[in-house]
Amino acid sequence: MNGQDPKSAYAAAGVDIDAQEEGLARVKQLARATFTPGVLSEIGSFGGLFRPDFSAMEEPVLVASTDGVGTKLRVAKMVGDLSSVGTDLVNHCVNDIVVQGARPLFFLDYVGAGVLDPDKLASLVEGVAAGCTANGCALLGGETAEMPGFYQPGDYELVGTIVGMVDRPLLLDGSRVRVGDRLLGLPSSGLHTNGYSLARRVLFEQLGLSTSDPIPGAADRRSLGEILLAPHRSYLRVVEPLLGDERLHALAHITGGGLSDNLPRVLPEGAVAVVRTASWERPELFRLIARHGQVADEEMFRVFNMGVGMVLVVEATGAAQLLAQLGEAGAEPFDLGEVVAGEGPVVYAAS
Amino acid sequence: MNGQDPKSAYAAAGVDIDAQEEGLARVKQLARATFTPGVLSEIGSFGGLFRPDFSAMEEPVLVASTDGVGTKLRVAKMVGDLSSVGTDLVNHCVNDIVVQGARPLFFLDYVGAGVLDPDKLASLVEGVAAGCTANGCALLGGETAEMPGFYQPGDYELVGTIVGMVDRPLLLDGSRVRVGDRLLGLPSSGLHTNGYSLARRVLFEQLGLSTSDPIPGAADRRSLGEILLAPHRSYLRVVEPLLGDERLHALAHITGGGLSDNLPRVLPEGAVAVVRTASWERPELFRLIARHGQVADEEMFRVFNMGVGMVLVVEATGAAQLLAQLGEAGAEPFDLGEVVAGEGPVVYAAS
Repeated sequence: MNGQDPKSAYAAAGVDIDAQEEGLARVKQLARATFTPGVLSEIGSFGGLFRPDFSAMEEPVLVASTDGVGTKLRVAKMVGDLSSVGTDLVNHCVNDIVVQGARPLFFLDYVGAGVLDPDKLASLVEGVAAGCTANGCALLGGETAEMPGFYQPGDYELVGTIVGMVDRPLLLDGSRVRVGDRLLGLPSSGLHTNGYSLARRVLFEQLGLSTSDPIPGAADRRSLGEILLAPHRSYLRVVEPLLGDERLHALAHITGGGLSDNLPRVLPEGAVAVVRTASWERPELFRLIARHGQVADEEMFRVFNMGVGMVLVVEATGAAQLLAQLGEAGAEPFDLGEVVAGEGPVVYAAS
Repeated sequence: MNGQDPKSAYAAAGVDIDAQEEGLARVKQLARATFTPGVLSEIGSFGGLFRPDFSAMEEPVLVASTDGVGTKLRVAKMVGDLSSVGTDLVNHCVNDIVVQGARPLFFLDYVGAGVLDPDKLASLVEGVAAGCTANGCALLGGETAEMPGFYQPGDYELVGTIVGMVDRPLLLDGSRVRVGDRLLGLPSSGLHTNGYSLARRVLFEQLGLSTSDPIPGAADRRSLGEILLAPHRSYLRVVEPLLGDERLHALAHITGGGLSDNLPRVLPEGAVAVVRTASWERPELFRLIARHGQVADEEMFRVFNMGVGMVLVVEATGAAQLLAQLGEAGAEPFDLGEVVAGEGPVVYAAS
């Protein structure tokens, strides 16, 4: 049953269990290197086992989120480098739970492909493992699936799930946000993991650029491939010192839906976010897409993060101090705007 | 930003956020109906919140698993019925953690497609929600991704993650298994979620059958579509009364790798599983695939469950009583074999 017969009926149907096993052995090694003290199981048990440390908590709450990296995978395929999208995925998920005040415990990944190339599988999981290590999160398990004919040759689907924990009194759920609060922005590293379908269409189809081209006329001389594959930033280390700080009222991770959809999620009834668009420099990539794709600002702010990856909603009186504190930590924060009384969508103010 | 303009640049790039939102509203309703008392959040928070009840536990351990349903999705597409694959996914995941003694807490799903049809998305998530409800597991969150050009029209990827909990003293990890233990088998409902690539090749390509045909010459008059889409059984309700029972030494969920790969995972060094192949009736579907696909038994037992969905490894002295108890509960158990001293792969004994 452990033979290498390439003529087996299952292999002929397009699924090579032995090649999968070679890749899986490497994946297990990568995962093992991420294990934290809570991990009880070896990868390869039916389910991964994790013993959380509740000792310092009043009322532990688990926080979980599942995500993918969208068509950023297509850019990775174009560039021929699958090594960083796994980190994107982890960082995206980490941010999704840190906004509720949670720290990550463990992560599980899923890799799907028509035929799994062991090197490409290892490359994808290396990115996942690197992201896990950087965020102090164990890669507890995962699944790989060969689905011949389902995925196009060279395409890989990558899905991840994170589980973290927060003590209920420290849970951030938007309920502390008040009219008068300030919004502090933290820069994104690029598109993060949203808007790639539109970006690819404008850059590669309409403008006919390639991944090795820089942005025409831009000061940033990196290639579009580098710019587009810049890993999604994790804000865990920057935000962690503020978890439990009474001045921090809410956090919003700016993902699909942009500032327009993600800011309202943490605001109470009768409150509107005012975003001062001059408070940060819009990266050249977004300006290029808007101009050449003829995409109106209204849509740009819904599809892309526009250079803002995370927003902190903070008590007005503590805002200046927090801004300074975040700046000292190298987070490059900016005074993005404020929460005002009103109804309706986010207000984008030019000044 | 909430307009219905179908000409938006993002929609033109193949992603229709508004259509996604219509589908998501229905998904949220389906998910909400599965909520158990532990759920703290509405779906739509950045991460789902769950407060586990540890009160009766000495040392709570989280057990997590991620899985897909493989190319069973292709059969669902052929038949035009996506309503049951979600249940397959949940039941598969539930079984993967119950074998370690864990009960499910919550589930998260991921649906990927080129273009998400709101009705098809709802159909998929209905299956997930039905599976969650049946297993007492909350559908805590999920992600839907439109990836134009990545998936073929009408193809849907479905990935799920389950998180459950077990008290450490009751954890099943194979360490209680001894030479002399008996193996009790529980019937599968069909292929469950493994071996579909080979099955489709033999049935549809080699034999030229369609999903509306019955198995030629079989007593079972169901169509191949029905037989192939029969949902993966959940063994939670059958096995749950035995969790913590000292006679139960281990459980093995028979998934990819079949009896050949999954039984050894719960056996100690120096022990081999002997499976008596006459102890259960091999379903006609497996016989058809073996005969017409010219697939040797050795491979059949590695690719398919062959009619055995779950194996209980039990203390020999309690085996007859457990067999009777499971029979009374309607689980249709059979005396599958035993654990003997030795080394090497599973032994398939004809008598």
